[in-house]
Amino acid sequence: MAPTLNLAVIPGDGIGPEVIAEALKVLEATGVDAATTEFPFGAGHFLATGDILGDADLESLAPFDAILLGAIGGDPRDPRLAGGIIERGLLLKLRFAFDHYVNLRPTALFPGVASPLADPGTIDFVVVREGTEGPYVGNGGGIRVGTEHEIATEVSINTAFGAERVVRFAFAQAVARRNQLTLVHKTNVLTHAGSLWQRTVDRVALEFPAVEVGYQHIDAATIHLVTNPGRFDVIVTDNLFGDILTDLAAAISGGIGLAASGNINPDGTFPSMFEPVHGSAPDIAGQQRADPTAAILSVALLLSHLGEQNAAAKVTAAVEADLASRGATARSTAEVGSAIAAAVAQN
Amino acid sequence: MAPTLNLAVIPGDGIGPEVIAEALKVLEATGVDAATTEFPFGAGHFLATGDILGDADLESLAPFDAILLGAIGGDPRDPRLAGGIIERGLLLKLRFAFDHYVNLRPTALFPGVASPLADPGTIDFVVVREGTEGPYVGNGGGIRVGTEHEIATEVSINTAFGAERVVRFAFAQAVARRNQLTLVHKTNVLTHAGSLWQRTVDRVALEFPAVEVGYQHIDAATIHLVTNPGRFDVIVTDNLFGDILTDLAAAISGGIGLAASGNINPDGTFPSMFEPVHGSAPDIAGQQRADPTAAILSVALLLSHLGEQNAAAKVTAAVEADLASRGATARSTAEVGSAIAAAVAQN
Ligand SMILES: CC(C)[C@H](C(=O)O)[C@@H](O)C(=O)O
Ligand SMILES: CC(C)[C@H](C(=O)O)[C@@H](O)C(=O)O
Repeated sequence: MAPTLNLAVIPGDGIGPEVIAEALKVLEATGVDAATTEFPFGAGHFLATGDILGDADLESLAPFDAILLGAIGGDPRDPRLAGGIIERGLLLKLRFAFDHYVNLRPTALFPGVASPLADPGTIDFVVVREGTEGPYVGNGGGIRVGTEHEIATEVSINTAFGAERVVRFAFAQAVARRNQLTLVHKTNVLTHAGSLWQRTVDRVALEFPAVEVGYQHIDAATIHLVTNPGRFDVIVTDNLFGDILTDLAAAISGGIGLAASGNINPDGTFPSMFEPVHGSAPDIAGQQRADPTAAILSVALLLSHLGEQNAAAKVTAAVEADLASRGATARSTAEVGSAIAAAVAQN
Repeated sequence: MAPTLNLAVIPGDGIGPEVIAEALKVLEATGVDAATTEFPFGAGHFLATGDILGDADLESLAPFDAILLGAIGGDPRDPRLAGGIIERGLLLKLRFAFDHYVNLRPTALFPGVASPLADPGTIDFVVVREGTEGPYVGNGGGIRVGTEHEIATEVSINTAFGAERVVRFAFAQAVARRNQLTLVHKTNVLTHAGSLWQRTVDRVALEFPAVEVGYQHIDAATIHLVTNPGRFDVIVTDNLFGDILTDLAAAISGGIGLAASGNINPDGTFPSMFEPVHGSAPDIAGQQRADPTAAILSVALLLSHLGEQNAAAKVTAAVEADLASRGATARSTAEVGSAIAAAVAQN
């Protein structure tokens, strides 16, 4: 019989394979019937073969129910990897090709987890980051490059179509949560894009009268994230502001070792992709020092996206219990994964 | 005899006039021979007269040695002020017209000041934010606006000329400080602008072999600002990233009530402009509840820029002493200003 879930797995580079091994251990412990197929993409694969991610690769990934990705990116000082060639050719290419217009990044300060904030209070919000537009479209250019007359541009492209669909998704999240939505942008400077976003939120808001809608400039939002993060429920924002806010959000809620994300195609036309927010951390790769929690929580997001709410809840509960009982003694990547997997299996 | 310094003062809106009154009190206490001329520009002036800042206004401001600005901006819900019309027509217009290519924003956690960070350590860095390029150039547009086919763009424009002059300024700052410079950008996504900035920093760095040069993506930089802000000495970055980082920097070092800034034209062709980083806070205007410290520290930056190092040092010392001795009892805006002015007068 065919398995319930067919998953593509891209362990990637650096600590990616280590954290993915633990994520798969936990997935198996849920008892969900899942088949996994591994793909070698990443900086290492590129350096070995010259290939990043071609059309044929996209075609082989397309039929899967979802993609689980570890982390990609090699030595940042390697000139062969300069200019984000792997990030753009692999990670962003997947997001754009598979129309991952929702980049969902939940942020919670779990009990027992230390925050760098003196008085974090309750932190429990999600950032709904647009994933296929804005300054990420790769629409920049340069003239007279390398001369004293060089001009370099970056064009942020925003569409009513693109803003509306992600704003709708964000309102639906708010309804399922605490009925609060904050648009973050920079409407006083980026007036064309900002106005489109603001008008879109205002219009969709009419259909969700129960949702309290607010607005903050991106600069002010960073202040609120460190002075009163408890005020946020759902944040909806563009691709670049979302990138910035979610790293800061991860930092205040215990660090990027815990932050999971989903690159979601809500229409189901393409497989969604789940990944920790952290990078490949080549400096600690292969040492069993990486925290696999973000990868494991990404599995929870994946399961929940694919309708396996029960299994997702088990994983989250096991992670929460593990976090709450973490002592001062450092555990290896595999030890953390095994502990969480054991707790999942017992429930 | 003509006074030593001729200053234009734009108190502006909201709490602007209150904090400027205290800043001028402190300026007077320094004994520096300064004449001040007040200008009415701001949201209130616009609503009363329909004028924001015309060419004739720019001409009358141009001869001054420097400009001291309080805060501008009216009720954010007033539709007549939508789309950042005052921010762009006044604040950004001044920055662009007077070629304030350096937006200098020092960040320090003064003794006695509480940080929202549990373990802030020593915070003492400056952000050198580019002030006349990037996504702030107003080069966006829209088609099919208001329809479901709307497309809105924002163009970030970056030049070798513009990047090099601000990068040079930043290196000079690093040499005068702790010889560390961090470029913040998003070179892996904004490849054209990012590459221009990176190449500019790499090239100028050759002339400053004593300066240790680093790079961080904007998203990672927000993490480091809350986990280890002590690692920064001089940050150089573009207009938008600088806007975001400096609000976060203000937040971690005691709040935006303490953050001063200089919009500097290092060439001296036009008057530089000094202002608190905070806005006009219309909700607390006229209540003597605003902290005038950021405005007072902006006077210190102004004095130092105009060669009055001695007076600048006195103001900074008086502010530091005042901050160190602040108790739990709230003081009025005027009480804080008078206390600092008295301390300055005594030195
Ligand atoms: C690696 C990079 C292109 C990526 C992004 O900017 O989106 C990362 O920072 C993230 O947030 O997933
Ligand atoms: C008011 C606004 C246009 C301005 C900016 O974005 O530069 C402000 O946030 C600042 O940082 O001075």
